[in-house]
Amino acid sequence: MLLERLREEVLEANLELVRRGLVLYTFGNASGIDRERGLVAIKPSGVAYEKLTPAEMVITDLAGAIVEGSLRPSSDLPTHLALYRNFPGIGAVAHTHSEFATSWAQAGKPVPCLGTTHADYFHGPVPVTDHLSCAEIDAGYEEQTGAVICRAFENLDPNEIPAVLVRGHGPFCWGRDPAAAAHNAVILEAVARMAYYTVTLAHDVEPLPSALHEKHFLRKHGTTAYYGQVSEKK
Amino acid sequence: MLLERLREEVLEANLELVRRGLVLYTFGNASGIDRERGLVAIKPSGVAYEKLTPAEMVITDLAGAIVEGSLRPSSDLPTHLALYRNFPGIGAVAHTHSEFATSWAQAGKPVPCLGTTHADYFHGPVPVTDHLSCAEIDAGYEEQTGAVICRAFENLDPNEIPAVLVRGHGPFCWGRDPAAAAHNAVILEAVARMAYYTVTLAHDVEPLPSALHEKHFLRKHGTTAYYGQVSEKK
Amino acid sequence: MLLERLREEVLEANLELVRRGLVLYTFGNASGIDRERGLVAIKPSGVAYEKLTPAEMVITDLAGAIVEGSLRPSSDLPTHLALYRNFPGIGAVAHTHSEFATSWAQAGKPVPCLGTTHADYFHGPVPVTDHLSCAEIDAGYEEQTGAVICRAFENLDPNEIPAVLVRGHGPFCWGRDPAAAAHNAVILEAVARMAYYTVTLAHDVEPLPSALHEKHFLRKHGTTAYYGQVSEKK
Amino acid sequence: MLLERLREEVLEANLELVRRGLVLYTFGNASGIDRERGLVAIKPSGVAYEKLTPAEMVITDLAGAIVEGSLRPSSDLPTHLALYRNFPGIGAVAHTHSEFATSWAQAGKPVPCLGTTHADYFHGPVPVTDHLSCAEIDAGYEEQTGAVICRAFENLDPNEIPAVLVRGHGPFCWGRDPAAAAHNAVILEAVARMAYYTVTLAHDVEPLPSALHEKHFLRKHGTTAYYGQVSEKK
Repeated sequence: MLLERLREEVLEANLELVRRGLVLYTFGNASGIDRERGLVAIKPSGVAYEKLTPAEMVITDLAGAIVEGSLRPSSDLPTHLALYRNFPGIGAVAHTHSEFATSWAQAGKPVPCLGTTHADYFHGPVPVTDHLSCAEIDAGYEEQTGAVICRAFENLDPNEIPAVLVRGHGPFCWGRDPAAAAHNAVILEAVARMAYYTVTLAHDVEPLPSALHEKHFLRKHGTTAYYGQVSEKK
Repeated sequence: MLLERLREEVLEANLELVRRGLVLYTFGNASGIDRERGLVAIKPSGVAYEKLTPAEMVITDLAGAIVEGSLRPSSDLPTHLALYRNFPGIGAVAHTHSEFATSWAQAGKPVPCLGTTHADYFHGPVPVTDHLSCAEIDAGYEEQTGAVICRAFENLDPNEIPAVLVRGHGPFCWGRDPAAAAHNAVILEAVARMAYYTVTLAHDVEPLPSALHEKHFLRKHGTTAYYGQVSEKK
Repeated sequence: MLLERLREEVLEANLELVRRGLVLYTFGNASGIDRERGLVAIKPSGVAYEKLTPAEMVITDLAGAIVEGSLRPSSDLPTHLALYRNFPGIGAVAHTHSEFATSWAQAGKPVPCLGTTHADYFHGPVPVTDHLSCAEIDAGYEEQTGAVICRAFENLDPNEIPAVLVRGHGPFCWGRDPAAAAHNAVILEAVARMAYYTVTLAHDVEPLPSALHEKHFLRKHGTTAYYGQVSEKK
Repeated sequence: MLLERLREEVLEANLELVRRGLVLYTFGNASGIDRERGLVAIKPSGVAYEKLTPAEMVITDLAGAIVEGSLRPSSDLPTHLALYRNFPGIGAVAHTHSEFATSWAQAGKPVPCLGTTHADYFHGPVPVTDHLSCAEIDAGYEEQTGAVICRAFENLDPNEIPAVLVRGHGPFCWGRDPAAAAHNAVILEAVARMAYYTVTLAHDVEPLPSALHEKHFLRKHGTTAYYGQVSEKK
């Protein structure tokens, strides 16, 4: 069986989304990619999490053709593939309908950077995409969802802002591996929740000063980072 | 004992409402119908969930006469029966006082469709009924509650919008079987919660564009659905 | 040892407040009264719940003199005693700092009756007291808290509205026995939470029409009640 | 191994923050000081809580030099040390990103004293610091965070208000020992949550009258306190 380890990591990331309360029933999906082989492992569509096994993860190529697996892949697969093709630095994608990130997506507003928790993970606001046009919906809804995400990152670095809100839908997050993508989904929800409380408490709140934003992002990321232990530098 | 399996399904649906945090103490009730025999199984009134057994489910006919069972049926039985008589496509009903759906009902507002989570399940806003008049309350409160729900669906299809908010009271949901009715009650609560956060975040938020609403509803329902595995097509 | 059973019921009511998430650390306290002997059992002050035993419940008379027990009673004892002396129909009192009921108390607003969940338990809004004056605070803070509660019920029946918000402090609830007092504290918190969501969703929301309020209250209480099983009529 | 008992208390305080839902992943940190030896025990940076052992707590002197331990200390160590140097009455510090306290910090607003729960623990509003200037960030971010906290207490007594909000970041709390610092962090979050609900419910709410604030603070603290049992007087 191909990609034994990737399957396990993808399953584990899917289960982490459940454990952290980010998915309800079968909502949400995580995938991972083996960049050398150009193969993706993704959760099957609509199967209950408690029964999932690594062997049920579906393996596809970057065009979406099923290489291994007897179940249908998640219906959001084309969105994941578009992200893998356009963001070469990422190794995994996680999608949820987590309640606060989704509420910002439904409101059509980016999650503003209001504190250092946000700045530790996201180098700027988490953007929200445009709505898809009717033509885009007809042209392949899930793939066009990937395209509209990529448009939102035309002037942004997906390695420094590992998440997006698809307008009216919910968040897609990513990372270097499935655990990191799931981790970013958990952090985004926490950050979105606190941003909700903050703006309903102070309607005219200012974003975090940029010097503080830079300081916190660089304390955890890049060559001068000094958060955590040496061995786990990211 | 009649309807062995239906009793078990009805009990299980009632317990699912508890597990998902939708009911407090003995609030809430779920029922199911055997259309061929015209018999309904429903939770007894005011009995603690942890002690319920399938045998305690009360069996009545569509006029509310008890056919089997030594306990009183849920006091909302006449509402369930009115729904079964008027919505021939449904096989089960679930009623809760879940906190966000109930808050929309108390506010007297339908739950607007603000995102794809809603669109996946409800083909339009979840409507809210009128208040019952004094005359209606006196004419048989629970039965008239059923009547006021039916009036709210005069121009709506209950198979496409499997839930309603009874104004000042709380949600009634339904489905093809008890599991589906309970599932819809869980989804309604999640959707109502996110709609609350969304409208308090963006007071002038627009509903989801209808093309996107259609796309998501039809992705999961109807002849062209492609969500989930083939065997579980609904 | 006196009042074996009452001690157990009082301990159990205190633990129910913990299980339902209504108290943090040692906040909150429940008591019960034996009307024939004029003796009250109450939780000791500031002792961790997980270690409490029935024998540690403190027994006092209606003037607050300790009759049995080696620990100090809850510092709110004089408030409980004032309620027992003034509300002859009650058999137990429960006090918490549960978050939504306390927030209404802090806002200085009664919990309005916005739905049938409220109407099932409280025959009108849950009132909020006045603030204590400096003179009252000096004259015996906890006893005067009891007095200010009684003033709030000058024109209300404590048997029909088994709860009050002490302004800037939190809720006191009561019932015919310790289990009922704790039950009412749980319901009040649920009702206060939904009222919060409702008024933040619809600032101009109207109270439940009084005909509906009457219907629901009388469906569960009084001689014509028909909710629940016959044996458990209240 | 130095300071056996302090290490255990510090670990236990860190775990209490996790159990109470105040930290996500490796966020947050607690430390304690041995005033006689001038040595501090603190959680290592970025290590998962479930694996922590007392031996992994890092021991430093008041200048931040590591005296014992093979792991890096929490990156917030210099903030803790500044508090120990400037607040001689405290024995421990706890820092979290708990959601409501952090939201007030993000909003740039002190937590107002709106009720007796607050008054029981904090003798006035919980202050919020200024933002750090660019020069301060460059001069040693974590140490300057300590300095900006001390400035916020120029006219306040840290023994009577054992918490602060660092603007745009989150709360730092303290106490006579690690358990008390963690306890205060838990209470601050509860108080911040209820203050959020209160001000969103009543935008023009008045602070608790000062006589009531004094009464509650002095009921639990100081020479005339009468809350709790005699042996546990604080």
